[in-house]
Amino acid sequence: MTLDSSTIQIPKRLLMGPGPSEVDPRVYKAMMQPVIGYLDPVLFQILDQLQDRLRSVFRTRNTVTLPISATGGAGMEASLYNFIEPGDSVAVLIGGLFASRIGDIAGRCGANVIRIDHSPGKAADLDHVRSVLKGKKLKILAAVHSETSTGVYQQIEPLRKIADDTGALLLIDTVSSLGGIPVEVDAWGIDICYSGSQKCLGCPPGLSPITVSDRAAQAMREKKTPAASWYLDLQLISQYWSKERKYHHTPPITMLYALNESLRLLLDEGLEVACERHRRSHLALVEGLSAMGLSMFVEDRAARAWTLNTIRIPKGVDDAKVRVYLLERFGIEIGAGIGDMRGSIWRVGLLGLTAKAECVLLLLHALESALIENGFSCNKGAGVAAAEKIYQTAAK
Amino acid sequence: MTLDSSTIQIPKRLLMGPGPSEVDPRVYKAMMQPVIGYLDPVLFQILDQLQDRLRSVFRTRNTVTLPISATGGAGMEASLYNFIEPGDSVAVLIGGLFASRIGDIAGRCGANVIRIDHSPGKAADLDHVRSVLKGKKLKILAAVHSETSTGVYQQIEPLRKIADDTGALLLIDTVSSLGGIPVEVDAWGIDICYSGSQKCLGCPPGLSPITVSDRAAQAMREKKTPAASWYLDLQLISQYWSKERKYHHTPPITMLYALNESLRLLLDEGLEVACERHRRSHLALVEGLSAMGLSMFVEDRAARAWTLNTIRIPKGVDDAKVRVYLLERFGIEIGAGIGDMRGSIWRVGLLGLTAKAECVLLLLHALESALIENGFSCNKGAGVAAAEKIYQTAAK
Repeated sequence: MTLDSSTIQIPKRLLMGPGPSEVDPRVYKAMMQPVIGYLDPVLFQILDQLQDRLRSVFRTRNTVTLPISATGGAGMEASLYNFIEPGDSVAVLIGGLFASRIGDIAGRCGANVIRIDHSPGKAADLDHVRSVLKGKKLKILAAVHSETSTGVYQQIEPLRKIADDTGALLLIDTVSSLGGIPVEVDAWGIDICYSGSQKCLGCPPGLSPITVSDRAAQAMREKKTPAASWYLDLQLISQYWSKERKYHHTPPITMLYALNESLRLLLDEGLEVACERHRRSHLALVEGLSAMGLSMFVEDRAARAWTLNTIRIPKGVDDAKVRVYLLERFGIEIGAGIGDMRGSIWRVGLLGLTAKAECVLLLLHALESALIENGFSCNKGAGVAAAEKIYQTAAK
Repeated sequence: MTLDSSTIQIPKRLLMGPGPSEVDPRVYKAMMQPVIGYLDPVLFQILDQLQDRLRSVFRTRNTVTLPISATGGAGMEASLYNFIEPGDSVAVLIGGLFASRIGDIAGRCGANVIRIDHSPGKAADLDHVRSVLKGKKLKILAAVHSETSTGVYQQIEPLRKIADDTGALLLIDTVSSLGGIPVEVDAWGIDICYSGSQKCLGCPPGLSPITVSDRAAQAMREKKTPAASWYLDLQLISQYWSKERKYHHTPPITMLYALNESLRLLLDEGLEVACERHRRSHLALVEGLSAMGLSMFVEDRAARAWTLNTIRIPKGVDDAKVRVYLLERFGIEIGAGIGDMRGSIWRVGLLGLTAKAECVLLLLHALESALIENGFSCNKGAGVAAAEKIYQTAAK
């Protein structure tokens, strides 16, 4: 075994893929704060503050609101493990990879999974959903707010009524929406909601904020079998994140500092202001792309997630060559299509810090250059100019 | 909801509890490196380097060697989920909380759990274990190398024969030993071994290194049902941590930088040198405590973990008052007893950076002061002098 004691030099990238996203220097600095013990009284102050900030961002008063000590996928699992008993029916609206994963995990929990598939480029047709679920008794109705694999935005509010009709808890994945697109946990009646630290919240990957309504917490307590996962058992975790402070596992303390600071930055800016910044940048990007002769994968404007923009790769253009060119020439990362979408779309994240004019204009310029390099004819400067116009209109 | 936008000042502590442990400034600095994408070619170099370093620390050539994206408890779960089919028999040697947790989680996986209890202050009696397991067919035989709740060291090598006799995979928890007490995964024939980032490895909490023998990897592949947890499904995770680089979840990239750097520091020092440093500090601490009139919870010297030192709280001394005094007056954190041991022992971690003379001597001085403050009569300076002698002998 050869031991390499060198340090690999990490280049500075501009992260405009599906996440992780750019991290503010103040968040990096927060991670330099000394690690302290999991029962240190000063840490308890931080846990309380972090929970308050999470409640503000989720727009909820839920008692059970905390970051799961792992990435978004574990938040998804916690959202299922703690509620499903083997044999329970769980319906999932599926139009992409992450919704499909909810179905897979619910299946691993022993649920009877009702997969309601819809076209990847569209939001779910709610009439169809209603008809499929008519007369059914569900434990959970699950959907993804902003599907990171397709860039589709799903309206959540109408799902509450469908959940009520089936007796279901409403579970929503807000991994790539929270902090960039309005999420109203209490007002929309979401029972179980999870996200990831590394998208619009602007923190490194490693934590999955979750919030659970009182009704869902009740269902969790009434569940006959314990959650299959001890690590993700919310009843045990909650004992640590409450006045009890009962040890469960050593939380990732440095990551908690990071998330606490990134939430502070978000709330200092203002949630509404941040969401409007994301919306505006999305519109500017779409106009710019359109002026360059590119088209969006999601045709219905109302079904486009502001945070995750999917672009059809024009015929004859080499997917990988363009992405490598962007990375090597401009240091910009954009995302490839994932699963079935590989080779047919690009995914451009406007997640947190990159949802602003400088980044959008640079990307449009860089993409134009990459496309021309790859034989696609673009009207030089048209993309940047069209996007500029959107920002200028907003500034007036 | 009131929003508090203040930043809580985090005091500098000297972490001499059961973990998290002290973090080297170079590790904090590594976390300031910019986050990059999970498919960035530069990240792949780091993943390869990190895996090589983990193999060196585990002393193994196992292909499946990687950090689980969560803390030690998740490593424990991954070690069970990926191997157990409902109905499998799993035997666990139990003398403390963490071994007991292995039994609990194996139960949640649907295993038939054979709990072989032994006294918390002693290592397991292997003759007794042999007689309990005689003629039994097991899927897994599990034990904890250094039991963080009791400070008991369990010799691992003889367990291989018992595992062989029962057809079992040998699963070892090295959370508070790896990097401080020799661990020989290949030489001892351990099949499944996990640890935590925040003990002797000197990294913040958040990752759980794991290694799996080829034989165990084969068992994992032959398992009929998928692991109950998708997040901890090692077959899926391995596809990302291999040449395939298939996306599974966004790893906690900043934490990977931290672990990679902390492993570099450990390997640069030399594993043997680091373990000897832990052993020497343990001996100095024990001599010092003895000179102060205190006694160790683990009576048999050979059964004491060098990294986790448990001290009997003398009669009439208030557990909490002493710990609070140490924290407030000296900024030193030591650990309370956990579970049944609460109020009867203190846990002093010599994990990574604090396993050295300056820290041991300071702790002995501070503890002497705390005890005198609490009405326990100590011969002033005796503890420090006795410990000094051990270090001086070593220096000759």
